[in-house]
Order: sequence, then C-alpha cells, then structure tokens
Amino acid sequence: MVGGGSDAFIGAIHRCAAFMDNQVELVCGCFSVDPDISLSSGRSYYLPDDRIYKTYQEMFKHEVTLPEGERMDFVTIVTPNKWHFEPALMALERGFHVVVDKPMTFSLEEAKLLQKKVEETKLILALTHVYSGYPAVKEAKERIARGDFGKLRRIYVQYTQGWLSERIELQGGNNAGWRTDPKRSGKAGAVGDIGTHAWHLTEYITGGKVTELCAELKAFAPGRPIDDDAAAFLKYDNGATGVLTCTQIAAGEENRLDIQIYGEKGGLEWHQEEPNSLYLKWNNKSKEIVRVGSNSFLTDNTKLKTRTPAGHPEGFIESFANIYRNFAATVRAIKNGEQPSPQALDFPTVYDGVRGMQFIETMVEAGYNDKQKWQKWVE
Amino acid sequence: MVGGGSDAFIGAIHRCAAFMDNQVELVCGCFSVDPDISLSSGRSYYLPDDRIYKTYQEMFKHEVTLPEGERMDFVTIVTPNKWHFEPALMALERGFHVVVDKPMTFSLEEAKLLQKKVEETKLILALTHVYSGYPAVKEAKERIARGDFGKLRRIYVQYTQGWLSERIELQGGNNAGWRTDPKRSGKAGAVGDIGTHAWHLTEYITGGKVTELCAELKAFAPGRPIDDDAAAFLKYDNGATGVLTCTQIAAGEENRLDIQIYGEKGGLEWHQEEPNSLYLKWNNKSKEIVRVGSNSFLTDNTKLKTRTPAGHPEGFIESFANIYRNFAATVRAIKNGEQPSPQALDFPTVYDGVRGMQFIETMVEAGYNDKQKWQKWVE
Amino acid sequence: MVGGGSDAFIGAIHRCAAFMDNQVELVCGCFSVDPDISLSSGRSYYLPDDRIYKTYQEMFKHEVTLPEGERMDFVTIVTPNKWHFEPALMALERGFHVVVDKPMTFSLEEAKLLQKKVEETKLILALTHVYSGYPAVKEAKERIARGDFGKLRRIYVQYTQGWLSERIELQGGNNAGWRTDPKRSGKAGAVGDIGTHAWHLTEYITGGKVTELCAELKAFAPGRPIDDDAAAFLKYDNGATGVLTCTQIAAGEENRLDIQIYGEKGGLEWHQEEPNSLYLKWNNKSKEIVRVGSNSFLTDNTKLKTRTPAGHPEGFIESFANIYRNFAATVRAIKNGEQPSPQALDFPTVYDGVRGMQFIETMVEAGYNDKQKWQKWVE
Amino acid sequence: MVGGGSDAFIGAIHRCAAFMDNQVELVCGCFSVDPDISLSSGRSYYLPDDRIYKTYQEMFKHEVTLPEGERMDFVTIVTPNKWHFEPALMALERGFHVVVDKPMTFSLEEAKLLQKKVEETKLILALTHVYSGYPAVKEAKERIARGDFGKLRRIYVQYTQGWLSERIELQGGNNAGWRTDPKRSGKAGAVGDIGTHAWHLTEYITGGKVTELCAELKAFAPGRPIDDDAAAFLKYDNGATGVLTCTQIAAGEENRLDIQIYGEKGGLEWHQEEPNSLYLKWNNKSKEIVRVGSNSFLTDNTKLKTRTPAGHPEGFIESFANIYRNFAATVRAIKNGEQPSPQALDFPTVYDGVRGMQFIETMVEAGYNDKQKWQKWVE
Repeated sequence: MVGGGSDAFIGAIHRCAAFMDNQVELVCGCFSVDPDISLSSGRSYYLPDDRIYKTYQEMFKHEVTLPEGERMDFVTIVTPNKWHFEPALMALERGFHVVVDKPMTFSLEEAKLLQKKVEETKLILALTHVYSGYPAVKEAKERIARGDFGKLRRIYVQYTQGWLSERIELQGGNNAGWRTDPKRSGKAGAVGDIGTHAWHLTEYITGGKVTELCAELKAFAPGRPIDDDAAAFLKYDNGATGVLTCTQIAAGEENRLDIQIYGEKGGLEWHQEEPNSLYLKWNNKSKEIVRVGSNSFLTDNTKLKTRTPAGHPEGFIESFANIYRNFAATVRAIKNGEQPSPQALDFPTVYDGVRGMQFIETMVEAGYNDKQKWQKWVE
Repeated sequence: MVGGGSDAFIGAIHRCAAFMDNQVELVCGCFSVDPDISLSSGRSYYLPDDRIYKTYQEMFKHEVTLPEGERMDFVTIVTPNKWHFEPALMALERGFHVVVDKPMTFSLEEAKLLQKKVEETKLILALTHVYSGYPAVKEAKERIARGDFGKLRRIYVQYTQGWLSERIELQGGNNAGWRTDPKRSGKAGAVGDIGTHAWHLTEYITGGKVTELCAELKAFAPGRPIDDDAAAFLKYDNGATGVLTCTQIAAGEENRLDIQIYGEKGGLEWHQEEPNSLYLKWNNKSKEIVRVGSNSFLTDNTKLKTRTPAGHPEGFIESFANIYRNFAATVRAIKNGEQPSPQALDFPTVYDGVRGMQFIETMVEAGYNDKQKWQKWVE
Repeated sequence: MVGGGSDAFIGAIHRCAAFMDNQVELVCGCFSVDPDISLSSGRSYYLPDDRIYKTYQEMFKHEVTLPEGERMDFVTIVTPNKWHFEPALMALERGFHVVVDKPMTFSLEEAKLLQKKVEETKLILALTHVYSGYPAVKEAKERIARGDFGKLRRIYVQYTQGWLSERIELQGGNNAGWRTDPKRSGKAGAVGDIGTHAWHLTEYITGGKVTELCAELKAFAPGRPIDDDAAAFLKYDNGATGVLTCTQIAAGEENRLDIQIYGEKGGLEWHQEEPNSLYLKWNNKSKEIVRVGSNSFLTDNTKLKTRTPAGHPEGFIESFANIYRNFAATVRAIKNGEQPSPQALDFPTVYDGVRGMQFIETMVEAGYNDKQKWQKWVE
Repeated sequence: MVGGGSDAFIGAIHRCAAFMDNQVELVCGCFSVDPDISLSSGRSYYLPDDRIYKTYQEMFKHEVTLPEGERMDFVTIVTPNKWHFEPALMALERGFHVVVDKPMTFSLEEAKLLQKKVEETKLILALTHVYSGYPAVKEAKERIARGDFGKLRRIYVQYTQGWLSERIELQGGNNAGWRTDPKRSGKAGAVGDIGTHAWHLTEYITGGKVTELCAELKAFAPGRPIDDDAAAFLKYDNGATGVLTCTQIAAGEENRLDIQIYGEKGGLEWHQEEPNSLYLKWNNKSKEIVRVGSNSFLTDNTKLKTRTPAGHPEGFIESFANIYRNFAATVRAIKNGEQPSPQALDFPTVYDGVRGMQFIETMVEAGYNDKQKWQKWVE
C-alpha cells in the first residue's frame, strides 16, 4: 500500500474492503511521506518493520527481490491525486498489479501513459469507482442491458455533499486540504472528487458513453481556488441525454449520490445512502422495490456480489470489497494461467481511468467564463 | 366557471378546492365549447338551467345584469391556455375578479395586457400555482426569509412526470391533446405545463428572481411538435444558482416535484408527493423533519394554512383550497372596504402570471438548436 | 349539525369533507350547548339566524316543519360521546338520516337501541370510521378479497399518538378534556378514541371478525382516570390472529396508524400518515408500491374513491369526504326510490357502531387487573 | 472455528466480520461434522491441511499443544444450537476464549453451566447478538441513558421475517432444517432464532430487564413442530411495558427488526433494514434524524463504532464486526495484563446468553394452550 496512514480516511476503507473476503493480506507498505508516520502506521497494522518502507521507490525495489509467495502481489495507491501516477507506473514496470483510487491521475496525459503501460505489461489496474460495486447498481445495469426499460431517454444523476460548505481546508488536519488545492488535486475539485463518480455511474449502469456536454463549474466558498460545485447537460452515444450535478457545498448533505434513469417503457432509481433497494417504475403497473440479498430472485451477477440474505444490509465497504474480490479473482486467474470469468472482470480499469480524466478535462474546458455551449468530449 | 366540463381533470379539482372551506359557491358557468356538454355538466353540478351558459360572452353579459348577492362574484377560467386571455380580459372589463389556471395566457403579450387591465380595474386576479399553497412550502419560505440557512447558494428543482412517454395525444379523449398542440398550448409543452410550476416554486420559496438561464428543450416522443422535456441552469438575483429539470416522458413517474435548497448554513428539501414533511439539513447537527399540522410549533402563516392536526395528511386539493380561501378572503375584504391581511394576500397574482410567460419565452429562446449560452430573462 | 362549534377540531373536518364534493350544504345547526357559541359559530358558517338553534331538540322540532327541499336532509352529530345517542335517536324518530362520529354511543346498550331504531325506520346511519375511506385501504380490501395473499394469517395494527403524554386535559381549552373523562367519554379512553379505529380497520380490510382477545389497558399519565394505552392479541373468525396496540402517550408521534397483514402468499402494509401508497410484499418477487390515483390500474372501487391523478396526494379530508359522498349518494338513491349501488353503500353503518361498542366492552372486560386471559367477544 | 462450512450462511458472515478490521486471522477449524466438507471448506479458506480438523475435540486437543502466537487465541462456534454447549465448554476448559452464536445453548441448564465455567476460568465469552453492534443502536442506548426521553414508558419491537412461510425445511439443503427441528434448535423456533434478538435489543438499548410477560406462541405452517410466530406483552423492572412480536411466516418480509421506544419527553425509532438512521421524536419540536458516521456529532462510543463518514452506509457485517473488534480488544488487553476499556467491553456476554435462555423458557412456559396470564421471568 502506498499512502493510507492512520489519519487517512480512504486508506482504512481500502484495508477493510480488501480483508473482508480473506482474499487479500497486507504484507508491506509505505503509508506516508513522513517516515515516522509510515512506521507507526505500519506497526499499528501489525506489519514487521522490515516491510514498512520509507519511500515507495524503496518498497518496489525491495519487494521485487523477495521470493514469490512472500513478496506483495499488487499495490494499492491511496495518495492524493498528484502522487497516483508515479507509483502506479513504477509498480507496473516492476511487475506488480495495481489498485488505484480515482481520479486515476493528475492529468489526462498521465492517464494515457498509464494505459499504454498497462497494455504493454498486460498487468491489471483496478480503479476504485466504488459505487459500481453495489449489488443494486449491478442489478440496474443488468436490467437495462436486457431491455426492460426499452431505449433509454433521460438520465438524472446528483452527487451532493455538504462537508466543504465552509473553507475547512484552511483549518488543516483533514481530508479537505489536498482536495481543494489544484497543485495536489488537479484541474478540478468537486468534479474530480465526486463528479467523476457520478459520471462513471451513468456509463456503468447504462452502457452509454458521453459524447458532448454543456457545463457550469463554480467555487461557492469564498476564495477557494477550485470548483466545489458543478452541473452539466450530457449527451450519450445511444441517444439518451442527461443532467449531472455534483456539489460539495450543499450544507447538511452527507454523501448523497442519487440516480434516476428513464427509458421508453419505464424508469429506475437508486440512492447510495440506502443502497440495498432499487426502485423500478412503470406507467401501467405498480412500482417495484427490488431488494438485494443473496437468496433472492436477482440476476446471477448480482447474487454473486452479495454476502448476506435480503434484509441484512450491505454497505459502502462491501461495495468496495466487491472491487477487491473481483480484482483478486482476476489476478489469481492470471497467476494460474486461466482466463478470468466475466464476473471477476467486473471492475473499473485503466480505460475507465482514462475516460475519467477526459471527463474532467471536458468539464473544465466547458464550464467556466459563462461560455456555455456544447463541448465535444476531449479525447 | 369557464371550462371544467365533466370530462376535465383540473376543473373538478378547482371545484373541490373552492367548496371545501364553505367560502365559495358555484352559481353559474359555461363549462364547454359544446353547449350540450356545458348544459349536462352544469346540471350535474346542481345548477339551474338559466345559469348554465352557452358561451362565456353570454355569461358575462347576463351575470352583470343580476343583482349583487345573486350574480357571481368572480370567475374561474380552466380552459386550455389558448382560451385564458379573452375570458379573463372580458371578466375584468365587466367587473369580475378572476381565478385563472397557469400558464396565465397563450403569449407574453397577452399576459402584459392582462396585467395592465388588472392595474386599471384594481380587480383581483389569482393564478393557481397550486404548489405554493402547501403548508410545508410556506414553512420553507418563512424559514428562509428569517435567515435560518444563511445566504442561499444552490437550488435544485425537478418536476418529473411520465404520462406523456408515449404519444397518447393521438388517441384522443384525454388531457394530453391540447397540452401537446402548440396551437392551443402556446410555445411550450412541458415547460409551460409543469416547468412554470417548478420555476415558480423556486421564486416563491426563496424570494429570489431568475435573471438568466441556459436551457435545453426537447421532444422525446417521436413526432411531438412541442417540448416534452427540458433542463436549465439558472442564475438568481440574490447570487444563488439553480438547476431545473422538467419532463413528461419519465416513464413511471407520477407528479414528482422535488426541491432542494442549500444556503451557507444548511439546506432544505420537500417532495410534493409526500407534502406534509419538510426536511431540514445541517452540517453540525441532526437533520430535522418538520411536519405540518394546525397544532404544532410552526410559523404563524403555516398554521393558518392547515386544516388538520399533524398526522392527518393534507394534500393537493387542500393546497389548491388555500389559494381559493386566500383569494376569497381578499375579495371579501375588498368588498367590505377593508385592507386584506398579508396572510390573505398570500396567493399568486397577475405579476406571477407575467413572469411565468417570461419564463416560457426565455426557455424557448434559449433552449433549441444546440445554441446553449446564458440567455437574459426576456422582459 | 349538532356540535362542531368554532373551537372544535372534528366538526370543521366534517364540514370540509361534506362540502368538498358539492353534495352537501350546511343549512342549519346547533353548534354548542352554549347558545352564544352556537349563534356565533353558525353565523361564521354563513347561516341565517333562524336556522341556528339553541338546542338540538328545538332544531329537530322546527326543521321537520319546513318544506322538503328547504329542511335539512340529515344531521351530523359531532358532540362528545356522551351526547351521541340522544340526538341520533331523536333524529331517526323525526325522520332524519344521521352521520355520527365514532364511537357511536356512550354504552353498548345505547348502541343496540340505535340499531333497533335504524332497523325500524329504515333510515341511514353513517359512522365516520374515516380510515376506511382512504383509497389505498379500499384497494387493500379488494386485493385481499380476491385472494391475492391466500388465506390470511397475521395482522399487526398500531395506532400511536403522543398528544396525551402529559395531562393536558388539566389545562382546559382543548380536545383532551372530554376524551379523558369517563363521564363524557365512556368506559374507555384511548381504546374508544383510537383503538376502535384500529380494530375497525382490520375488520374492514380483511373481512374477518374478532371473536376473542387478550388485552392490557393502562393509564400512563399519573392520575388519569381512564386508559391512555392498550394492547391486545386478537383471534379472528377466519383463523387469522392479530396484535393491536393503541396509545396516546407515545411522545412525539402524531397520528400514526400503521397496518401490516400477512397471508400465505404475501403481505401488505399501509401507513395512514403517507396514505397514498400501499406496499405489497412477496416471498419470490419484488415488493410493489401501489399508488392510488384516478388514472391508474387499480380496482374499480378504488378509482371511484379518488379525485386526483396519481401523484397529486389526497389526504384525511378526502378520506372523510368519501364517507360523505357515499352516504349522500345512498340517501339520494333512497329519496329517488332507487337501490343504492354497492359502491355507494361502502361506508360504516350502525352495525359497525354496535361492534365498536362491543370491542370497547371486551377490551375493558379483558384488560385490567393483570387478569390476562382470552376473553370472548362481548355480544 | 467450529461449524461454518462453505454451505452455511452465518459462518461466512462471522468470517467477513472477524477479518474486516485486521484484528483476527483464521488459523484453524473444524467446519463440519462431515470431515470431507470440513477439509474442502478449510482449504477454500486458505488453511493448511494440518489445521483443518475432523472433530472439534481433536482441534482443541491439538491446538493447545501449539506454541502461543501460533495456536488459536479463541474459537468461534457457529453450529446449530444443539452443538453450542459442548464445544464452548471444552474450549473454556482448554483455556480458549469463545465467540458463540445465539441462542447460547440448547437449554437453560447448559447456559448456567457455561456461565459457571466462564466465571471459573475468567475467560471471555462473546455472544453475537449482532443487532446490538449497530452504531445507531449504541447512539439510542446512550441517549436514553443520559435521560433525553425522561422515564421510559412504552416499547414496541417487531422482528418480522417471511422465509418460513412455507415448510421449506422439508425440501432440505437450506438453513431452515435445524431451525424448525426441536431436536436441534431447542424448545423454541422463531422465539429462539429471532425473538431473542428482539428481546435483547430492548434490554440493551433501554437498560431495563423484563420481569414478567404474557405471550402467545404458534406454528402457522401446517405440521411444523415448533413455533414460527409469537407475541408478548412485557413488563420491565423500570416500569416500562412493551409489546414484542416475532414471526417467520410474514410472507414477503426479509429481516425486519423495528423498534420504537417512548418516554415521558419523547420517543425514538430504529429500523434494522435501514440501519444508519435513528429517528427521534418530540411533542413540541421537529422530529430529528440522527445519521451515524465517524465524522459527526454523535456520542463518543458511537463514533468509535463506525468506520465510515456519514452517508457511506455501514451494514450488518460491520455491526457484526463491532462485536469481534470489541471482543478482540478485550482479549488483547487481557493478554497484555491490562484492564479492557468500557468501549471494548461493549459486547454481549455469557450473562446475556443466560438471560436469553431464560427468555425462551419464559415464553414457552407462558405462550401455549390458551393459558394466557402474566408469567414471571423463569430464573
């Protein structure tokens, strides 16, 4: 693991998610740029000192010398965006698979280099667009794919948070600092942090690709040097259109990711904060609530991605764990010289990562200076 | 009453709403362009034949000759948009107050003429933007006005219906016909029918006025000659911005009007389909559910606009009835030479009607031909 | 109308409900035992002084002398329980139909006398068990009757209020006074006021009849001389069993009447505070949300009992109005010498009233002194 | 681990929960009475063959010979109820701490023996009443303890499932077999399987103890030899009273555990199926929704028991993991010769296990043969 010291939120989630299914063990890490924090963090994770590294360069260099079975199989990168690319590239060059948090890189250029490296090495890069890991999301995807709703027409997605209503980044000691700093976060703030999730969710569920958008980006918190709010009209290659909003200044909201999708025959709706229900709507019959759970009448892929019977709620960590479990199954298959199953391959990859960076570029290109117009997807 | 024959939806609602509080009695009407339908409708409403008219012209002409106390005090106009203006104007000219359904007229020009006539005659024109009649909406307005949420930043409003997913207007015999026919509906379809409600709700609750917008209008149903779906980015004169969507092709949705408003200190949320709860959200304390009802700790205006104790749900008709009750109280005050109370004056008027037509004009001006840009409010 | 002065809650609801559909006009009344309040109330309801009576005896005596068409057709009785019987009996004796609030009388004995009088006079007595008037309740009844859920097994009903948590009856000036006074309320407090509604709802929806129960009644508020809380196990004649709770000391609750019914094949659920949704549940397929509204795929009786399209919420007053509309249609049919339709006859009558008093007697018989046992229904 | 072969539901949950926080590693097990299943299960959990045992007797015997650090620290027992006692007793005798699923034993007698052994050995026995592990439940407990609601009055708890509506135990190959067989399950079916959870939740949250109850137990599924449904009136030692229902024949319900608790000043409500919200209700102010999450304004203990920020839902497995994490912290403290913290000691123990068996005994004693009366708690 690179990053994820004791004070970081997302690193802890990655570890819970990775451990849950007994597929992944933490064997080494460089958990902070500060070697003392790295050491104390690693110890608190029960690692021996000789597997706690001062730098990720040292980690890759040393791990590769260990015998197989002992050395790490893959690396998880949970640093601020600015430091995704270099360790990911180095990992791939040294022969390690990679799990990296989104957005994949600091710039689109880096993303494309990473894609090239993945294609060269044929190693696996998983991108943790965690919301695609929810069983109800997979059920939605499946039902749309089989045509339950007819041709899709309209997609609404909102990702609404309130934790950046004030400039808490000025207080220090929290997760807001790098996220609101263009030098560490990249061109975009809210758009990169949560907008990419909202956009990705629409493409994951519907199978469509955004081709054009019209956007507005803004910083509401006075003096913030990067967007904390955005909205966009979207056009998809399948004829559907969409409206996306993402904001981090909606005071009082937690982590509200809501999606509504309508086709000719019906619609569906899902709310991340209550993730185990999928709502189906029809013009000429009752609404339905599809509840996930391993023992119910769901599509096969959904059933594989649940751990509990219906009514025993799963949550964010389980969704994250689905990405890890699939990634682990894929890596294991490859190690065994087997073809990974389609169910195992169901996780976001370097290609989602490149598209994510294109999404950011397109939004930033389109969304400033009152120059609203339809902006073609930046390739 | 003009329009509102036995087959019309909104006329029946107007009658229930008007009667509920024992403030209004139906004394005459011209309920259809077809004299036979008018007659049979009027009889089914227990009117004597001599107060059921063949034309509204005849109605105004005759009613004005009746002694006060017997003749009608005001007229309700619930015809398709095309036929709002003429009877409204004629009513005002003959000295009758007017209740008219929204959008107020067929064109902005007509709206302005009506405004002029209202100002001349000093008669009352009420516009039935029914959603502003809900107690929870009034509570939201009041709490924003007193500053609970700080300076407003972001407004999301969606008005989502599915009943026009298919071109049911081609089947005849329903309320879809004139709504999807530009000759009877005006320049806009969904934007006029429901977009105006969504827009009005944002201005009513927040007190802000839209100054500029960027929009996209579209007809999804093949061959439909008028928009059935739209979205807009909005700028308000108080610095807030908004995103509005309205659609009638969201298969499976009924009459979903949802609003979220965020200020510096907190946010609120209301759902028309479950209208008796208002959700308040805060960054540093629990969310709140404010439930309306006459016996609770609400602001005074809200309490005046409820008829039942909390937990005895009120609905659409009661909301409508609040407009009628306020209108009736205002008309009665005027008749008695008194100043209507602020609580009585709490209903949409000809000025809302003019702004509504401006909203339609601005949306249509902005929203076609992929020419997205910020469009100033059409005055 | 007898009772229902300006300060009374339920009288106002009766009037709104009666007026809404333009089937009923208020023509006279004795609105209070205090002649001054009666007069001022009557005037505020726009009645002429000569139709505002000092006593109900006087009212019946005088009204009967008026010509048909002018004199009242029926009387609504909305006094405290103690004063239901006498005016109801007198009305029937003078030839007037009756609408009376529940519980029908002060004692079971009175109830039986009223039943006898109704049978003698063949007049109509409607009892306002308002919750049976909701469209979703009718839909539930219909779907159970046609066997959707198989043989019924288990019924849970809770009626939970909090307004009597403290002894507000000691403060005066509210609706708590007579309800907590055995001299005016009868043998039971919460059981009579709301328990009867909960019990009635189960019988109305399922068609079963309670045959035996085991109960516990209690007053939680210190010194209150009558139950403010109760629970019961129920046995029905169709083999189902149930659990009923009713309480008025559940601090913070408004008017929560929730019912869950389970059969061999599935279950249903309804919540009065959000009354337009009926939830259906199945072991082997998705849950369903049946939403009421005049234009949807509901059973015919439900459609007749709605006034708005789906998504335009109806509430408590509309539910009340359904009882009045049906009662009015029945009375009109009888006047015209016609047979009332089954849909018109869908309202609670004197027989429900007698059973309601039996329910109270049985609960009181069973529920005190820790003498829990199965108590046969008191006939 | 004893039990928990690849086909068992609850064993898999225990493993996910134990692994999630990187506090527990699976080092050995006897996963089935069938040695082949035990072996294949153990291998699929990545255990070496020499730590996969044919019998639990063999396991305890051999593990105790391994050096500390290598041998297991504690054992988890997830067998059917009949086989809880013997391995638990043996584990304690051999010096191993124990985690055991509820109900703790097959009989009350066994439970008392286990209590005695725990007291003798001073080892730790954790009982997985998982619902007490939810953060929102802990928040409820804390707020009641500090008096927010005043003296408690009324408790409603329902645990409603539908999966045993039909006699699926006759089909074999599922989790219904032993649960409906008195020879393996004990005296009670639904009462033991889920009623104990409902009862425990009330005592955990309120701090009160049931002293007396009046109950009804029944098997609805034809021919089932054990209860699949029950209800009880409860009296608590703090003056509160309660109504408990548990059923497994409520067709269409999943795992609905709902609790409502009312005190003099307010009430609270929690729904296990949407576990991250706690509803607070008050007579004189707005309702509140307390949402759990590590970064919010919750009581300290709750914050310690969450892993994610608000809006990132946690679920059943995380609740389970809270028991394991606390148990592990307690065991570690003991190993280190330290006093476990109160937060670590927050998990159900052998004393809850004994009371649970007493609950079962009391319910069975009280609930048959129509002999309803108040039954004192069986000690």
